[in-house]
This record gives sequence, C-alpha cells and structure tokens, in this order.
Amino acid sequence: MTEEKAMAVGRPEPRFDAAAKVTGKEKYAADEYPENLLWAKARRAGIPHGRIVRVDTSRAKAFPGVVAVLTAADVPGTNRQGIIHKDQPVIAGDKVRHCGDAVALVVAETRSAAAQAAALIEADFEPLPAVFAPEEALQPDAPLVHDGGNTLLAADIRKGDPEKGFAGAAVVVEGEFSVPFQEHAFLETENGVARREADGRIVMTVSTQAPFRDRFEIAHALGLDVNSIRIISPFLGGAFGGKDGATVQCLLALAAMHAGGRPVKMWWDREESFLAGYKRHAVRMVYRLAADADGTLRALSAKLYYDTGAYAHLGGEVMELGMEHAAGPYRIPNALIEGWCVYTNHPVAGAMRGFGVCQVSFAFERMMDRLAAKLGMDPLDLRLKNALRPGDTNCAGVKMIYSTGMVPCLEAIKGHPLWTDRSRWKGGAGPFKQRGVGIAAVFNAMGYGRGLPDAAIARIELTPEGKIRVLNGVSDMGQGNASTFVQIAGDILRQDASRMELVQPDTDRTLPSGSSSASRTTYTYGNALIGACDELKRRLFHWAALALLIDETKDFKLEAGCVRHGPSGKSIPLELLARFMPEVERVCTNRCVMPVIQEVPDTGKAFRLGFPHAIFSYGAHVACVEVDELTGKADVLAYHAVTEGGGVINPRTFAQQVEGAVAQGLGYALMEDVQVRDGVIQNPDFFTYMIPTAMDVPDISTAIVPSDEPSGPFGMKGIGEVGVNAPLPAVAAAVEDAVGCSVDCAPLTAPCILGRRSESGKGEAL
Amino acid sequence: MTEEKAMAVGRPEPRFDAAAKVTGKEKYAADEYPENLLWAKARRAGIPHGRIVRVDTSRAKAFPGVVAVLTAADVPGTNRQGIIHKDQPVIAGDKVRHCGDAVALVVAETRSAAAQAAALIEADFEPLPAVFAPEEALQPDAPLVHDGGNTLLAADIRKGDPEKGFAGAAVVVEGEFSVPFQEHAFLETENGVARREADGRIVMTVSTQAPFRDRFEIAHALGLDVNSIRIISPFLGGAFGGKDGATVQCLLALAAMHAGGRPVKMWWDREESFLAGYKRHAVRMVYRLAADADGTLRALSAKLYYDTGAYAHLGGEVMELGMEHAAGPYRIPNALIEGWCVYTNHPVAGAMRGFGVCQVSFAFERMMDRLAAKLGMDPLDLRLKNALRPGDTNCAGVKMIYSTGMVPCLEAIKGHPLWTDRSRWKGGAGPFKQRGVGIAAVFNAMGYGRGLPDAAIARIELTPEGKIRVLNGVSDMGQGNASTFVQIAGDILRQDASRMELVQPDTDRTLPSGSSSASRTTYTYGNALIGACDELKRRLFHWAALALLIDETKDFKLEAGCVRHGPSGKSIPLELLARFMPEVERVCTNRCVMPVIQEVPDTGKAFRLGFPHAIFSYGAHVACVEVDELTGKADVLAYHAVTEGGGVINPRTFAQQVEGAVAQGLGYALMEDVQVRDGVIQNPDFFTYMIPTAMDVPDISTAIVPSDEPSGPFGMKGIGEVGVNAPLPAVAAAVEDAVGCSVDCAPLTAPCILGRRSESGKGEAL
Repeated sequence: MTEEKAMAVGRPEPRFDAAAKVTGKEKYAADEYPENLLWAKARRAGIPHGRIVRVDTSRAKAFPGVVAVLTAADVPGTNRQGIIHKDQPVIAGDKVRHCGDAVALVVAETRSAAAQAAALIEADFEPLPAVFAPEEALQPDAPLVHDGGNTLLAADIRKGDPEKGFAGAAVVVEGEFSVPFQEHAFLETENGVARREADGRIVMTVSTQAPFRDRFEIAHALGLDVNSIRIISPFLGGAFGGKDGATVQCLLALAAMHAGGRPVKMWWDREESFLAGYKRHAVRMVYRLAADADGTLRALSAKLYYDTGAYAHLGGEVMELGMEHAAGPYRIPNALIEGWCVYTNHPVAGAMRGFGVCQVSFAFERMMDRLAAKLGMDPLDLRLKNALRPGDTNCAGVKMIYSTGMVPCLEAIKGHPLWTDRSRWKGGAGPFKQRGVGIAAVFNAMGYGRGLPDAAIARIELTPEGKIRVLNGVSDMGQGNASTFVQIAGDILRQDASRMELVQPDTDRTLPSGSSSASRTTYTYGNALIGACDELKRRLFHWAALALLIDETKDFKLEAGCVRHGPSGKSIPLELLARFMPEVERVCTNRCVMPVIQEVPDTGKAFRLGFPHAIFSYGAHVACVEVDELTGKADVLAYHAVTEGGGVINPRTFAQQVEGAVAQGLGYALMEDVQVRDGVIQNPDFFTYMIPTAMDVPDISTAIVPSDEPSGPFGMKGIGEVGVNAPLPAVAAAVEDAVGCSVDCAPLTAPCILGRRSESGKGEAL
Repeated sequence: MTEEKAMAVGRPEPRFDAAAKVTGKEKYAADEYPENLLWAKARRAGIPHGRIVRVDTSRAKAFPGVVAVLTAADVPGTNRQGIIHKDQPVIAGDKVRHCGDAVALVVAETRSAAAQAAALIEADFEPLPAVFAPEEALQPDAPLVHDGGNTLLAADIRKGDPEKGFAGAAVVVEGEFSVPFQEHAFLETENGVARREADGRIVMTVSTQAPFRDRFEIAHALGLDVNSIRIISPFLGGAFGGKDGATVQCLLALAAMHAGGRPVKMWWDREESFLAGYKRHAVRMVYRLAADADGTLRALSAKLYYDTGAYAHLGGEVMELGMEHAAGPYRIPNALIEGWCVYTNHPVAGAMRGFGVCQVSFAFERMMDRLAAKLGMDPLDLRLKNALRPGDTNCAGVKMIYSTGMVPCLEAIKGHPLWTDRSRWKGGAGPFKQRGVGIAAVFNAMGYGRGLPDAAIARIELTPEGKIRVLNGVSDMGQGNASTFVQIAGDILRQDASRMELVQPDTDRTLPSGSSSASRTTYTYGNALIGACDELKRRLFHWAALALLIDETKDFKLEAGCVRHGPSGKSIPLELLARFMPEVERVCTNRCVMPVIQEVPDTGKAFRLGFPHAIFSYGAHVACVEVDELTGKADVLAYHAVTEGGGVINPRTFAQQVEGAVAQGLGYALMEDVQVRDGVIQNPDFFTYMIPTAMDVPDISTAIVPSDEPSGPFGMKGIGEVGVNAPLPAVAAAVEDAVGCSVDCAPLTAPCILGRRSESGKGEAL
C-alpha cells in the first residue's frame, strides 16, 4: 500500500458512496422494511380553509387490519410543529388552513389497509372564506389564516438615502415580476419508520435534513423528552430544503406511540408529497432601479410579497435572505427593500435550494438588463462596473471582508466563446428559430446568518479494527458532503478509501451539526472535521510513541494502515494501536461555529434571526437559447456556469453541484409551476408537473474561479445553492434577446413565450 | 454562589482529599475487604543464594483452609518481572538470589491459615557462595548472581578533558564516601486485592505507583493479554518509589487465577516488606575534585559503585541519574564519572525518592566543603561561584535552557539569619554541647529523560449530574498531585470544590499517564490536564451556544455551576447542559509528552534509556545541628530549605513536599540504615530500623524562589524529590562544623559520631 493511494483533497476522488448506491447496497430510509411492520397514513383536509365540525373515525377503526385511528385529541403535547414559528398542527383539531392539513392518522397492518381506512374517516368541515394572494391577505378585511393576522413578517432593509438616490439619478427603470411555487420533486418522497422501544424511547429512521432538530420538533409537539427520541438519517434521495423541518416525523412518532412496540412506516406517495410537502415561495416583486448616465447604480427600491401558504415553516427567514440578496451582487449606495411574508390558504412554502434568492435574482437581473438596454450599454459591462468587490458593502450594509469573487466570474464569462461568439451563433439559427444569449450574475450567502449558531460537531474514530470512521452529523441529501468528509479525513490521515468507514447521521452516534442546508454543510462540518482529524493524528502519534517507546511525537507520520516514526523507521499498525487505545481515545470530536458579522449594520432592524450574512459564493452564467417561432418552445442549447466558491475539495463533486443546480434552475426557468386554483393543486404529479429530464438539459459546462476563503476548510465556501439562482434570469435574458419581448414571469413555457411575443407585437411570424 | 469561591491556582487550597482521609472515608487498597475474601502469602527463601532442590507443598496443601499452593511450575508465562530488565522471577524455580525471593505461594481462607501453611512448605536449597559487596562482585572469580554476569550496567560520563583538568589544577581534594540501603518505610505496606471475573479478566485494586505498567508486568510474567487485566490504584499510604514496579501484583494475579473467581488479598507485613520490598541503593563513591586557586572548579573524577542487590528493578537508571548529578549543580569543564551498578545477593534496590541523587549529593557536597576548607573560602561563596547558571552546561554536557535557579537559592540562604547569625548561634551552645551549621546545594532532574516517552493523558468530564470530574491517571502516593489536579481544573473551569469530583487511577477509566515518580507527575499530567480543561470549556461554550441560540462562543464564561453568556446575561446550568451533551462530548482527554534534550551530548554513550535530562529543580538548605559531646547524638535544631521549582500551584502542598522530603532526608542523615549481614536484614522492623518521628524533626522553615518554567503547567516544575537530597550533606557539614571531624559515611548516628571524633583526635571531651 503506497502513500500515493491515500485520498487527497483537491483531487476528483470518486464518490465514497458511489458503489453502494449504484449496486443498491446503500439503504435509504424508504428502503427500511423491518419485520412486523405497520403502516401509517394521514387523512388530509382536502379543502383550503374550514372549521372542523366532526371527525368520525368509527368506520375507519372497524376496517380490517386497522390498529389505531388518531385525531388531534390523541396528540399528547402542544400539537404544534415549526422550525421557528410553531404554528403547524401535527393533526389539525379546530380548523384546517390548507388542503394538505392532516385531520386524522390511521395505523394499520398494510399500506393498503391504512389508505382505505383513511378514506373511511368522515370529516365534516364548516368552510371558511379563503385567501390566496398575499396582497389580498394583507388587506384589513381579509380572512384570517391565523388568529394573529396574516403577516408572518413585514420588514425592510434601508441603506443610505434611497429617496435622494432616486431624485438625483440620470435614469430609472421599473419592473414587476412574479414567480410561482416550485416543487422540490425529489426522487424519494417524505418517509420514515419509527418504533417505540421497550424503554419508551422512540427510534426513527427518516429521510430528513435535520435529524437533531427533529428531536426537538417531536418532543415539543408530542410532549416527550428530547432524549427519549433517536433519529437516524440515512442518505437522502434528494431533499433541496423540502426535508428541512418536520414532514412525517411527528405523525410517525405519534403512530409509534400507538403501535404496541411495532415499527410503523409512513411514506407519502407523490400526490401526498405535493399536497402536504413544502414548496418554494411564490413571490411578486416590484422594482425600481436608478443609475447615473455611465451606468453607476445609485438607488434601488424593491417591494417583495412572499406567499408562505398556510404555515410559517421558514418563510420569514426565506424572505429575509431574499431581501438580503434583492439588490444582486452589486454595489448600490441607496436601497429600500421592503418585504411581506404572508399567510394564505395555499400549500405551505418553506426552504428550497436558493432559499428566497432564486426569486429576487430573476427580478434584479431583469432590471440590470433593462437598465443596460436603456443606457445602450453592454449588459456584462454594466454588471462588471457595479459588481461587489472586496471591501464594498452590499445592500444590507455588510462589508465584503471574506472572499468576494463576482468580478472574476464575470470576467471569465466575458472571455468565454459562448459570449464572445454570440453574434455569430445567433446568426446561425435555422428557419422558424430565433436565438438569444443571456447572462446572469448571482451570489448566495452561506450559513444561518446572525442570531442562530451555525455550528457543527465532527466525530471521527479509529475503529477497533484499525479503520478510520467518519461519523457525519449532517445529512447527505445527495450533494456528496458525506463523501467529501471522508475525502478530507483520508487526506489528513493519509488513508485510502478501503481503510475508511462512514456513518450517516444518527442522534445516538453522531453529533449535532445543524441542518443540511444553507450551503453550510461542508464549510461547517468540514472545518470541525479538520480539527477532529488533527486531534486523532495527535492521539495516534502519542499512543504510537507509548507503544514504540519513543520519547517525542514530532517525527511520526501516518501511512496506509499504520503510524511510522521517521528517524527510527519503526511502525505500528493502526489495528494494533486500536487494541491499546480505549474508546475515549479512539473517538475524537471537534467543533466549529461559522463566523458571523461582527458589526451588524443598522439596515434590517426587524430581523431577529438570520440577518445579516457574512460569506457569499458567486456565479456568472451564460445561456444560449433557441426559441421555436411556431410553438414558442425555448430550448437551451448551450450553457456555461462559472463559480467562485473558495477552494475546491473535489472538483468532480463541485461540478456536479453546479450542474445539478443549473438543471434544477432550468426547470424553474422553463417548466416548473405548481398550479394552485382556489387552494387546490392542479398538477400534483409528474404527468402534469414537469421537471427537466436528461433530454431537456443541455450539456452544461462549468468553470471554477480559483480562490481561497481562509476561514473555510481547505479554503472552501459552500456552493450548493448559488448555481440555482442564475438559470432563470440567464434564460429569461436569452429569450428576451431571441424574441425581443419582455419577460417578467416564470416559467418560460411555450404558451407563455407565445403570449409574450403576441403582446409585444412581434408575434407576426407565429 | 460567587466567583471568588472558585478554586484558584496559586492559592493554598486545602487538600481535596483531606476530609475523606482524616475521617477515614477514603479507602486505601489495604482497606479493601470484599466479601468471600481469600488470602495469599508467599513462602520466602530465607537464604541469600542457593539452588532450589525441592519445594514440597504437600503438608501446606493439607492444611485446613488452604485453597491452593503454587510454585514456579504453576506460573504460566515467562515468570519474569522487572520494569526494564525482566530478571526477577515471580516465584523462583531454579535458584534463589536473595533472602526475599518467593519460592511458593499459598492461597487460603484466612490470613492466618495462609501464613501457617506457608511455614509448612518444605523448601530444600543447595547453598551457593554469595557475594555482597559490589567491588567484590566485580571480581572475575566472584560468584555469579545471574548467569550473564554481575554487572547490570557499567557506564561513564566523560566531559572535556578530565586528565588535563587535573594536571593544571591549583588544588585537588579527594574523598571516599559510602551510604547504606534505605528503607521506604511507607505507612501502608505492599498490598492488593485481585479477582478473576467470569469473563476471565483479572481486576486488581493495588497500592501501586504505576497501574498502567503493572498490566504489562503481569501480562508478561503470567502469559496474559494486557487488555485482560484491570488495575485500580486508590490513594497510596506512601510509596516513595517502593511501589514503582511489581510488588504483590504478579503473585496476586497468579493467586486470583487459582481462586475460583473469589477475591484474593495479599498484604505484606512489615517484616515481609523489609525482606521483599525495594531499597534505596547502598553506594560507595570515590571522588577527586580539582580547582583553581580562586575556587573555580576545573575537573572532577568520580567512581560510583551501586549495589542493586539480587535484581535490576531500575538499578541501571538509578545509577544513570546519580551519575548525571554526580558533579552537583555546578559548572565543571572536565569530568569523568564512572559507574558500576552491580548485582549482589542483597535485598533488591530500586527506585526511591531522589533516585540515585541523594547518594552523590552527599559525596559532592562533602567535596565542596573540603575544597572550601583547603582554599580557606566560605563554603557558600564557593558554591555560588561555581553554581550552574542559565546557559551553562552541566556535567553531562547538557546546556541549561530551562529555568535554572541554583544561584537565587544560594543567595536566599546567604541572606538567611540561620546563616548570617551562625557564629553567634554556635557560641550559644550549652555545656557538653557543640554546635555547627552546614549547607548543601542540590538539584534534581525531572522526568524519565531521553529514550522513554514521559507522557500523560488527562481525562476530565462533565458528569451527568453537571459536576466536573477529574480522572487522574497517575497515582497519588500522598504527595497531593491528585488534589493539585482538582485545583487546576477548578481554576480553569471556575468551580469550587463542592462541584468537583476526583477519580483515582483505574486502567479501565483513566488513561495512561506513566508512573508516579521522577518529580514528573504534576508537570506531565498537569500540562495534559490544562488542555483537557480548555477543551471542556470550549465544548461547554459550544453546547451552551446551541442551547441558548447564541451565534458565537467567544463571550461565554464559566461560573459556579453554570455557563453564562456575558452580553445577553443568559445562562444555563451545567446540570442541564449535561443532559444534552452525549458522553463523547462530556468526556475530554488531552495529552502531554515532556520535552527532551534536542541535541544529546556525546558524554554518556553507554546509556540507552533515561539520559540525559532537560529540566531540573534546585534547592539550597541550611542545617543547624547540636552534638552532645557525651553521647555523640546530633540534634537538628533549626533547618531552612529554599527551593526553586518554577511556578507554585499550591504553596501549602509545595511546602509539605519540601518538609516531607527534609524529614525523610534527616532520617537518611541521622538514623536510617538497613543493616544486612550475610544477606540477612538485621533490623526488619520499626523497633530496630528507626525513622524520624515528629519528635525527631525540627521545625522546618521553607522558602520559595519565585520562578517560572514556561514549559510547565502554570510555570511549575516537579519538586517532590529535590528536597530529599540536601539534608544528609547539610547535616554532615554541620556535624563537621560542630565537632571538627571528617564525615564520609551515613547515617550520622551517635555511635558513628562518637567514633569519628575519636578517630579525628578530638574526642578528649567525650
């Protein structure tokens, strides 16, 4: 075994989980089928707003194979869940606020029996007037979704003197934009298996982004001791934010409490996932942007209306992040950004990759293009002129003291053939085709922001067999963070993959490391892990010195499977060391808390949590789109994404994240739209809600701007989200460029483009 | 509970163990009387050298209550023990080498039955010629104690050009000195209780200085797996080196293997402790010392003959340390120090406080006084002139780069009333009394020296109840190190004694921290502990941040029983934090390896282990002695000890260590002498072997030279041994000063002084 086979940071190591996943050996939560399994199924409201008059479970209880039918009366705790605002009932008791509210829960011997019994539950409602548009919900006489009012959060960010900024400007552009709900559309829908053990503990294997927080959610909702709950989170088949917060957890725990010690499985089918799962917020955005004649940005005004649906989830925080990014990655001295996050009787909106930033990126980048057009400037030059540089302050008043790579990203696009050759390429469109090229500059904050500890505790151990085991505390939803952790540990401890083991989150074995979200995962856990690996190395050297009777530890090094003392050449196998080291020495933990802004600007007084952020990643994308004049269908024929995300631990994983984000962003740009009519989702399946397939996604080329963020592990920053913000504005710009219409809503479906062309009077050819 | 009640380093905190010890609540190993106890008793050889012809155990086996009678044939492993040289049988099989060799082991229902049965064992020996004097044992035709020859170690330290140094010197003095065996004479004699558990593990509670090493001793001797042995070491009732290495351990483990799962106790009575326990080496020393006319030391020659008795124990290492100190704490450019550590048929000599340095301190300090007399110089000025200063090299060629406080110690004595007023005081002697004042300058190395890792692993934890528990890995033989560890942890973690817990060494719970020896204990474990406390603090702050939702850990602090966030004023009780922190987070460990000399001088080529040392503590003592002209009895009427030992963690414990060392040194100076005739100890009890009582010890005043050793915990160095080196030379100088005779052997008993006075022709008055 040679040194060169050890894993190395910076190399495109294969995914540690690749073989187990492609062979089916890796078990997702959905793959759990313990013996003697029961199934749980919720009965959903089916109406958007109504008072519960009666829930008759008698017929359901009598159904063969039914073990229990539970209602709100059976929930022993607060019956309220929610990450920050605990406003969502586990089982609705007094009223329902959206069609997906659970009103009862069936536990039965089979999945089919549970579903049939759920259908037999008779729920009578007194319908209440419903409200679906945020601006309507803000009216004084609007129906109240919650007694406390429909405003979850109203806040503003004020920087400089916006009024004065507008007054003195040479040019002002305006726009109104809207984006719809987006579905997470993960492969593995919400599911888990829970069992109440003989000692009363509830053990749950669940597809979740936040296993440690889940314990508190369940404990609070069901009146349990946090320590009586164990959550195990295997690899997730996708999540994107939709599994950040309770989905099946509280229902499953409740079911387990009535299952006589048997395991209970709950697995939402696709329709239930649409109905009861979380969505990306639909947002309406009203923008004004002022600049000098040379294109220097002077002032911004933005009004943002986030539709959070029936419950808060992380709505306030999503809007906060959107507001913090609402001015784009640009230097604007004066800004007033106003936001309203509003309850409606829509499905619940919450966290989703981009976390409120996707939406404003669309609006702001449209504004930049309009400004460029009005000034007759090159849109890329306008962006370069105003891009945030190190030392600038962003619209929240935060000074950019961490790595700030907007400019090099734009410069990389400026020199890229897709951009430099765009005229030639556009000229090559065939008959009934129109081509356009668009760009977008985006950024995305990392971490929770001020007000919440963005923390991780890494655990690594030498196993009794002498292997290195990484105990990952933060879910891997598919982005590859767990594999990256193994790579980091392998690099520091000089071991190859065959000598490494990986344990996925388990609240009994791994340690609280926050949620898998906010582009924070590898930064926070990775930083903690480096320290844990260094500590394990120190311990191994100490014990090797004891075993080999060597009086200093400085000249030891790790090699594959052993520790060697350089000067003497003596070595000891890790397996042997493991025999002598007690568990407290074989197990190392280390902690990291992400740095926060030290001097919080006075710009966003209404935010209690999550404002502002310190560290951002940057991206500039170029999209080459061909529109069919006859159908209106837009095809993205070429796409290039440049990303600045600090150091790169694994270029392959880095590229995968950018490619995946672009694919998801292209779905958002071109086809995804949760159509809700009177609170009822019209397209709750993949026959009617379309997401991109491999055939819809172009070859995406990616480039990395070399960079280093000293506070990050191996200089890295999180890049899981930044890439999802650019496709919509880039494609929109390309479509505008192609067909000459103005784009102000998404997705850019064929009918939409056809319609726009008609409106803009350019529909003659169609 | 207020901040000021927290323990603090530098304060004379009461011993943490004081109350439990004075109330009898604290249990020593000897206090262990588990139910269903058996007793083990060894049959000893009784002759100094002989071939074993026959060991007939039949009568013993038949004795009522006897469970087993074991001989060498029953020892399953190598049947050899020894810390470095494994030359000592657990039960002698072929021959016996000193009177204390075990030839059989009885396990019986009662202590009395075991003793009576042991007496019934018929052991027939073929006597072999014995050898008792090292210089005789070195003769070619001497009887062989071991087949490999009688020389355990012959070595020299050569620095500069000794021959040339002597050739050019203005003045040369010579001397021959001898010191006898000294008994450790601890209160609690060697003992332990062992039990073989159902799973085959042997669990032993034993009075030992080296619980972790004991496992290896037992495993090697008895052919067991190291991990199958658990050693628990409660507080010791004294040890002084005599419990460093196996005493009862292997015998007890063997007994436990034949006790059917019942616990077996072995507790040597005082006579067996004298017979089979380890002694301070008797040494003969031949010195020559050359100086310039102004007193500047030029050259030293020393020949040292260490009598290690029948087995090695740490004889070679004891002599090595003696040789390293053989030139005293002085700057001598040229030195040849030759040493022979020799097997004889005497009782086994081994480690004892001072570890070979006591003996040479006597010789060298006598030489300094003779040189001063010959030059007509003040003995203190002579010492000051030549004392090692920072940057000097000692006789081993080691440059003094650590704190080196010999000069300030001597200066403190120079200004002390006992020294400045000595003429007046001597003049005040009553009729038939003669008074003298003597000084001694001493030093003592800390740690194992090069070649062996001098390492400790501290463990500290937050208990599930929210207390701070220190798990001490290095035995407390009474010196107070365990209490000091609690004080360090209390200081760093800001807790008072009521919130602290202490666990004494237990190989299953605490971590390898080496032996309680070599003035290394607090330095090494203390350094490790500081890091462990700092780590626990970091963890507590992290978890407090998680619990209190605070986004940085920098502004937390510990207070009595809680963690508080300064800016917000929020706090969380340790008890509550403990509920959330899993064990891996509540338990912190940290390691320390004592620094070693980086450029090993080429002066002591024969030493493989333990040479040279890097860090020393220093002392200067003054003794005021009154000799009764009629009886020869010397009384120490006043005594002052100045010590430089770096920073002081607890001035009370510091003073106790110096006072205890002086008391033990005064015993060595005035009364202690293990008289061995033809290999048989003549005074194996406290009626005939006298140690100082409270009535024999003067009020000892102590002073501390303020100092700082940056590598030490809170700047400290070990001072457990340095004080024991000075009383003999100081008292000898005082006696010489009083009666005018020349003193070259110890102890200075009344008959000895009377004899010396007669020899020196000054006995008229007697």
